[in-house]
Amino acid sequence: MKRVVKFRIADRSDVPAVLDLLDDDSISRTRERLVPAGDDAAVWAAFEAIDADPRNELIVADDDGAVIGTCQLTFVPSLSRGGAERLIVEAVRVRDDRRGHGVGRAMMRWALDRGRERGCRLAQLTSDKRRVEAHRFYESLGFTASHEGMKLTL
Amino acid sequence: MKRVVKFRIADRSDVPAVLDLLDDDSISRTRERLVPAGDDAAVWAAFEAIDADPRNELIVADDDGAVIGTCQLTFVPSLSRGGAERLIVEAVRVRDDRRGHGVGRAMMRWALDRGRERGCRLAQLTSDKRRVEAHRFYESLGFTASHEGMKLTL
Repeated sequence: MKRVVKFRIADRSDVPAVLDLLDDDSISRTRERLVPAGDDAAVWAAFEAIDADPRNELIVADDDGAVIGTCQLTFVPSLSRGGAERLIVEAVRVRDDRRGHGVGRAMMRWALDRGRERGCRLAQLTSDKRRVEAHRFYESLGFTASHEGMKLTL
Repeated sequence: MKRVVKFRIADRSDVPAVLDLLDDDSISRTRERLVPAGDDAAVWAAFEAIDADPRNELIVADDDGAVIGTCQLTFVPSLSRGGAERLIVEAVRVRDDRRGHGVGRAMMRWALDRGRERGCRLAQLTSDKRRVEAHRFYESLGFTASHEGMKLTL
């Protein structure tokens, strides 16, 4: 019988696996190790901040106890679009040995449904221009690359 | 003597002027009037949500009591980049009769400084691909169009 991957809000015990996923990425690695070791106090404080914030959710894809995917959802209140929140998805990752089997697609669909349930009218994300396959993936979910995603290191 | 434009967090009395700025935009107008009349309860609720949220700030450019620009800042806690918050800037507008005089530039610099003061290590925004002048403006501030900005109407 096919195992079913569950999607849920991360708890503290998931943080090391999530950090591994964030770091296990050829483009992320070109940044000077921006995901520090899991014992960094600032990273734990960031987890606590996300966990306590009703407008931020760290999500994991859980396959029988193994964290094989993650994303972060941010619900941004806005005066545009009739006062609806806007759903921002960031830090989407699937473990490299589990790609190509629909885990990312199922996780994104779950995330978009979660946005719809909250009344969000728009979902958005930015994806590195080098990740051409990722763009095709997001377009297959209905996203349009209508905007430039601009970044500035502070 | 040159008047000095001040940047500050919006209060309730600024909301109608901010809605006018959000609506006074040829690209926004191609959406089916997504900024409703200022008396819409959902829009007021959205303002209250932003105002009460320590990670969201609605900013106005105030020229001697007249609101001539706006943007919204969202500080997103993140496990990446050593646990630093990421600054997202959205809904950047300058009143059309006041463009080309540095108000937008001063407002963005003020916003980026505000992000730095909070310890943000990355600022990001999305800008409609049709707004070519806007991209040049953001690039002149140091932004790089490194990402696709992908959107999906829910």
